[in-house]
Amino acid sequence: MTTLKNDTFLRALLKQPVEYTPIWMMRQAGRYLPEYRKVRGEAGSFMAVCTNPELACEVTLQPLRRFDFDAAILFSDILTIPDAMGLGLHFTEGEGPKFERPLRTPADIEKLAVIDPEIELRYVTDAVRLIRKNLDGSVPLIGFSGSPWTLATYMVEGGSSKNFAKVKALMYNDPALMHKLLDTLAQSVAAYLNAQIAAGAQAVMLFDTWGGMLSSEDYNEFSLRYAKQVRDLLTLENEGRRVPNILFTKGGGLWLEEMATTGYDALGLDWQTDIQHARTRVGDKVALQGNLDPLALYANPDVITEKVKTILHKYGKGSGHVFNLGHGILPDINPEHVKAMVDSVHKYSPEYHTQA
Amino acid sequence: MTTLKNDTFLRALLKQPVEYTPIWMMRQAGRYLPEYRKVRGEAGSFMAVCTNPELACEVTLQPLRRFDFDAAILFSDILTIPDAMGLGLHFTEGEGPKFERPLRTPADIEKLAVIDPEIELRYVTDAVRLIRKNLDGSVPLIGFSGSPWTLATYMVEGGSSKNFAKVKALMYNDPALMHKLLDTLAQSVAAYLNAQIAAGAQAVMLFDTWGGMLSSEDYNEFSLRYAKQVRDLLTLENEGRRVPNILFTKGGGLWLEEMATTGYDALGLDWQTDIQHARTRVGDKVALQGNLDPLALYANPDVITEKVKTILHKYGKGSGHVFNLGHGILPDINPEHVKAMVDSVHKYSPEYHTQA
Repeated sequence: MTTLKNDTFLRALLKQPVEYTPIWMMRQAGRYLPEYRKVRGEAGSFMAVCTNPELACEVTLQPLRRFDFDAAILFSDILTIPDAMGLGLHFTEGEGPKFERPLRTPADIEKLAVIDPEIELRYVTDAVRLIRKNLDGSVPLIGFSGSPWTLATYMVEGGSSKNFAKVKALMYNDPALMHKLLDTLAQSVAAYLNAQIAAGAQAVMLFDTWGGMLSSEDYNEFSLRYAKQVRDLLTLENEGRRVPNILFTKGGGLWLEEMATTGYDALGLDWQTDIQHARTRVGDKVALQGNLDPLALYANPDVITEKVKTILHKYGKGSGHVFNLGHGILPDINPEHVKAMVDSVHKYSPEYHTQA
Repeated sequence: MTTLKNDTFLRALLKQPVEYTPIWMMRQAGRYLPEYRKVRGEAGSFMAVCTNPELACEVTLQPLRRFDFDAAILFSDILTIPDAMGLGLHFTEGEGPKFERPLRTPADIEKLAVIDPEIELRYVTDAVRLIRKNLDGSVPLIGFSGSPWTLATYMVEGGSSKNFAKVKALMYNDPALMHKLLDTLAQSVAAYLNAQIAAGAQAVMLFDTWGGMLSSEDYNEFSLRYAKQVRDLLTLENEGRRVPNILFTKGGGLWLEEMATTGYDALGLDWQTDIQHARTRVGDKVALQGNLDPLALYANPDVITEKVKTILHKYGKGSGHVFNLGHGILPDINPEHVKAMVDSVHKYSPEYHTQA
C-alpha cells in the first residue's frame, strides 16, 4: 500500500500527538460546489452518482482540490442498506429520501435478512477501492453508515419525518419487534462498515441522525445499545494500522457520558453542545469531532475566523480534537467561506499542540 | 374574586407542599378532541377561534370537562405579538404559521414598536377575563407567549423553518440589529404577559420553541438573555398571590443550569431530558414541568401508566414537579389515552408527597 502522507486526522482520533488540529466537513462533497452540481446534473440523480464508482470517486475528490481538508469521506448516502434490503430508495427534489416499499407490517420486518455488502452493496466497496487508489496516500478515507435506529426510522416512516409517529408507535407498542429490526440492522451495518474497511476505508463513522428524537431512556434502549453492538463487531485494525471509529448522534449532547462508554474512539458533536463542557464530561475516554454551527458559514470570513478560534480555544490544549461542522454544510454556502474556516483551523491550531 | 378550589398546580410551581403531582398538557385544547374540531370547523380557521373570546373560552374549557387537569391554559397562539405588529399571521393547512409581511430589511426591524397589548391584543385579554369567569375558581388559568428569540425566528423566516438560515444569517452578520429586534420583542412579551396577568392569568409560561437550534454560546446571547429580560419585567403578584412563571426551551436540556439562574420559578422539560438528572442539576432553584414523550400516548393505556410511574419515580419525593408532556399532544391521539395518563398521575403520585 502507498504510505499515508497526512495521517493527522487518524492520530487526532486516537488522541495521539499532532502538529495541528485536522479538519474535514460533513457533506464536504456536495451541492455547495459548482463542480459537484455539474456531475450531479449530468448523472441525472443523486443515486446515479452514488451507484457509479467513477462518479462517486470524482465528487469525493472535488473538495480536496479546493481546500486543505485532512480527510476524504466516501460519497454515498446513509440509506444504502435499506435500499439493498429491497425498500427502493429514491429522492424527491426538496423532500429528501423516500422508500417505495416502507415497512408496514410485522411480516415486512420478520422477512428482512442481514445483507452481504460485498454482493448487495458492491458499488460502494468498488467506490472505496477506486477512491483509495486515486487519493494516492494524500489523506485518509472515511467510510460511514447510518445507525441502526436512524435507518429504522426511515424504513418505518417511509422517509423523513417530523414527529416519528409510525416508528415510535411501533417502539412503544411492540418493543420486541422493534428490537428484532434493530438487531438485523446492527449486524448489517457492522458487515457494511467492515466491508468498507476491507476495501480501504481508514476510519469509519456511524451517523445517528435521529437518536436525539428519543427520551434518555429510549435512546439507551433503542439507539445507543445498537450503536454499541455495531462497535463490538467492527474491524479495529487493517493494513497494520488502527482503524478509528466515530459515533455521531445529532441532538445527543445530553448523553455524551453514556456514548463515551461504548468503545468508540471519538464522538461527533452537534453545534448545540459546548465543546469545552463536552471535553470536561468525557475526560480522556474519547476524542471529539466538531462543532461549528453550519449556519455560521453565512457570516463573513472575519467572523468565521473568530468562531473557529473560539472553538479551538474551548477545546484547549492537546490532541483529540478533529474540527468539523456540527452538521452538514448547506447547499447555498459560498465556498470561499469554507476556505476561511479550513485555513483558520490550520493557522490558529498549532499553538494548542506545541511539543514541549 | 372567587376562591381557587384547586391550587395544587400553583403550589407545585413554587415548591410548596402538595398532596399529589398536578398535571396539565401542552395543547390540551386542540385537534385530538372532536368537540374542538367541531368549533374549529364552524369558525372556519384557527385564528378565528383565537380572536373570538367566546370561542377561545369554549375550547379552553373543553379538556377540563373530560379530564381532571389541574390547570387550564389560554387557547391562543405563540405568534399573536408579531401579528399585532402588522406582519399578517395566517395558517396554511399542513404547513404551519406564515407571515404575509416577514421582516426582510433593516428598515422593517427599525420601525417595529413595542406593542400595547390592551389595545392591540384586546381579544386575548378579553378571552382571559371570560375564561376566568367561566372557570369559576375550579383550577388556575395559565397565560403564555412565545419567547423573543422564537418570535424573531418566525418573523425573519416568514414561517416555520428547517435550518433557520435567514434568522441565523442576520444574527451572525448583524448581531446589533438582531439585538435591537430581540429587545423590542422582550419588552412586548413582558407587556403582553403582564396584561394577561392583570386580566386574570394566575401563572405564565414562556415558550422558547426554537432556542434549542442555537449553539450554547448563541443560546445565552440571543435567547436566554431576552427570556431573562422578560422575567425581570414580569408582574410577580396579583390578587394577593404569587403568579408563578415557567420557562420552556425545547431542546434546551443542555442548558438547565443557566436557565435555572434567570429567576423563573419553573423550567419546562422536553422529553429528551432525563427528569431525575435534571433535578440533580438544578437542585432547589426551580420546579420542573414535564416530560413524557408526546408520542408515548400512542401506546396502550397499560404502557402509558408504566411510563407515568417511571417519570414520577425519577422526579422522586417532594414538591416541585408538574406533570406534562415534553411537547404538545399530536392531533391523532386517542383521548382515552390522555385519560390514562391523567388518572395515573393522580393515582400514583400521592406516595411521593406523604406529609410526615
